[in-house]
Amino acid sequence: MRTLRFTLAYDGTNYSGWQRQANALTVQELVENALTKLCKETIKVVGSGRTDAGVHAHGQVVSFRTSCAIPAARLAAALNSLLPEDIVAREGQEVPAEFHARYSAQKKLYCYKIYRHPLASPFWRLYAWHVPGELDVAAMRQAAEYFTGTHDFSAFCAAGGTKVNPIRDIYLSVWRQSGDVLEYHVEGTGFLYHMVRNMVGTMVDIGKGKHPPHVIAAILASKQRSLAGVTAPAQGLYLDRVTY
Amino acid sequence: MRTLRFTLAYDGTNYSGWQRQANALTVQELVENALTKLCKETIKVVGSGRTDAGVHAHGQVVSFRTSCAIPAARLAAALNSLLPEDIVAREGQEVPAEFHARYSAQKKLYCYKIYRHPLASPFWRLYAWHVPGELDVAAMRQAAEYFTGTHDFSAFCAAGGTKVNPIRDIYLSVWRQSGDVLEYHVEGTGFLYHMVRNMVGTMVDIGKGKHPPHVIAAILASKQRSLAGVTAPAQGLYLDRVTY
Repeated sequence: MRTLRFTLAYDGTNYSGWQRQANALTVQELVENALTKLCKETIKVVGSGRTDAGVHAHGQVVSFRTSCAIPAARLAAALNSLLPEDIVAREGQEVPAEFHARYSAQKKLYCYKIYRHPLASPFWRLYAWHVPGELDVAAMRQAAEYFTGTHDFSAFCAAGGTKVNPIRDIYLSVWRQSGDVLEYHVEGTGFLYHMVRNMVGTMVDIGKGKHPPHVIAAILASKQRSLAGVTAPAQGLYLDRVTY
Repeated sequence: MRTLRFTLAYDGTNYSGWQRQANALTVQELVENALTKLCKETIKVVGSGRTDAGVHAHGQVVSFRTSCAIPAARLAAALNSLLPEDIVAREGQEVPAEFHARYSAQKKLYCYKIYRHPLASPFWRLYAWHVPGELDVAAMRQAAEYFTGTHDFSAFCAAGGTKVNPIRDIYLSVWRQSGDVLEYHVEGTGFLYHMVRNMVGTMVDIGKGKHPPHVIAAILASKQRSLAGVTAPAQGLYLDRVTY
């Protein structure tokens, strides 16, 4: 058996997220169907992490085991001939048997996009959160700094999430402005369910002046989901890069 | 009767173009339906120009006549409450009775986007033409210059187009590079059917080295559609601005 990995970019608009489900179309299902056809054997894949319905990816990493002989260098092109245009594979490579797209991940980088123009844009509606009012970006930048380091992120984990270790290390947490689009870049060891979207929702409240930036420290310490802000909508979130 | 105008941005992906058709969903139909509901009388609108299926707009201009009393300043917001999210109105204003979105237009600015990365992008597939190979942008820029001025554009008009005056003035014809996206900006008194897409298809052939830039002069002089290049796909084209 060989172990192969590749990277996927996808527009999440038309999918019920990454993870295979019984009655909904997911990216994992289409990728497994394509690989099963390509390898002429049933293929199960592992993704670096789940993405929710409507969430996008520039750099989802996928691994799988196969006994087929397809050259790693040809894998991405062969896959792209079978996948729809909103899912694109690249960088196929053979990896050691112990490689696992999820368990071997060292850190993940996400991006969240906010479209700030007073009017909604037909071109951003599926690719950013439209926040039309004034935002104090300096306050949001200060708030973002409170997330860096090692924290218990229970307050930013969706209620009803499974019991996982809520301690996470955040290496990068910054807002960058590019024209009408404000981007939040966050990199860490891993993220709890809805964690990035809850962090963004809370920082947008701070940008609107509802709380001062240092409230982040208090919310983290409280471990209470009810103290954090709304969950920012899915379509602004992008899984950008996974590092192994 | 009052005459009103407003500006529309739309993502053309889900529509069979601007102009109302019997058995296909068009932007004009949705706008007329929304205005008819708003004004409580049957409204017929005039657009500055037709856009084909899949073509986008940042600044389509629309005019209509009505006896209803809706304040011009409230028109766009009221329309947006009735339109789908991929069509957005702005800048409603009352204009003199002689204003006509099509006949009063002095010039139109179009943009055509090419995505140049070797791999297709799921995020550009509906918003640009994917041209993965090498392109000699300097040659394309030289070619673009040949279009400026007053010319007979018969060679760049789709075969079977109606008999209209093929003479057009082009004020601006430039390529601008922004990362992986190459944009063609062209402004003129008006454009024949498929004219911008045929100009772009021909310039891409020049960028690929199939012809030297000065071939544009010969193609214009020939008035033969068969000498020009392919029609670039619809999804890269944007109606950006109409000037009155």
